[in-house]
Amino acid sequence: MLLTAWDGYMKQTTKLLNNFSAEEMQQEIAPGKNRVIYLLGHLVAVHDDMLPLLGLGEKKYENLREIFITKPDKAIDPLPPVEELKKAWDDVNDVLSGKFAALSPDEWLQKHTRVSDEDFKKEPHRNRLNVLISRTNHLSYHLGQLVLVKKTNQEV
Amino acid sequence: MLLTAWDGYMKQTTKLLNNFSAEEMQQEIAPGKNRVIYLLGHLVAVHDDMLPLLGLGEKKYENLREIFITKPDKAIDPLPPVEELKKAWDDVNDVLSGKFAALSPDEWLQKHTRVSDEDFKKEPHRNRLNVLISRTNHLSYHLGQLVLVKKTNQEV
Repeated sequence: MLLTAWDGYMKQTTKLLNNFSAEEMQQEIAPGKNRVIYLLGHLVAVHDDMLPLLGLGEKKYENLREIFITKPDKAIDPLPPVEELKKAWDDVNDVLSGKFAALSPDEWLQKHTRVSDEDFKKEPHRNRLNVLISRTNHLSYHLGQLVLVKKTNQEV
Repeated sequence: MLLTAWDGYMKQTTKLLNNFSAEEMQQEIAPGKNRVIYLLGHLVAVHDDMLPLLGLGEKKYENLREIFITKPDKAIDPLPPVEELKKAWDDVNDVLSGKFAALSPDEWLQKHTRVSDEDFKKEPHRNRLNVLISRTNHLSYHLGQLVLVKKTNQEV
């Protein structure tokens, strides 16, 4: 169920991003707020970080962390090109999908890498599945912002 | 884990709504998009609908469905007063919290009320837990929009 939710939001977000024009990619989601391109880079960086967090491999785009997580939008100019970020988006998400599919239910309930063995004994919910829940909600949070840039959005 | 995620987003949303001024409650989340008051009513109506959907009771605010789910923002004028909607928000969410706390893990895996026994046999994921996953993501989707109205939001 949780993988289906993740996949569903990922597909919806990818479709939306692919439908944005070059101009829309540079638009702010609301006046003075983050631009679409920044949110794309932010999501790539956050998803890339899931690889080491879940103990599934090394990050592939370490350089994006500083630009899209540490720093807010408009602090760094210019941002990497949209095409490069879209390629990284597809790449990271393909890698995650493959790794996710290979995890057994038991492995999902194992601890993530940023909790100690000792803490995990006391807080067994700090597992991989919880990271997936949290990152799916993070994705839908930003999807709710990205749809605002669509010209004819009447959906709530 | 899923109840903790629900509670966390609920608390964050409630805090945000309570911090909005009367003027901010009437603001659009982005130019031409839904107003905060509409999203508040929308979330109340959707959460109220979780009671019958989860087989946990009757809806308490049937009248809100037409205004905040069927119709888009600005189709109905005036909307119910903010204070009334906030009261309904607290009420529905208190009722849901109580009902959620009383459900056993097995009961969470039972079918929701809008799937037939036959379909549930083939699609056992159409259970209460899946409704909770979906509604938490729905909530974070709109929370991502509501934060845009905060004056000093730099968070992503």
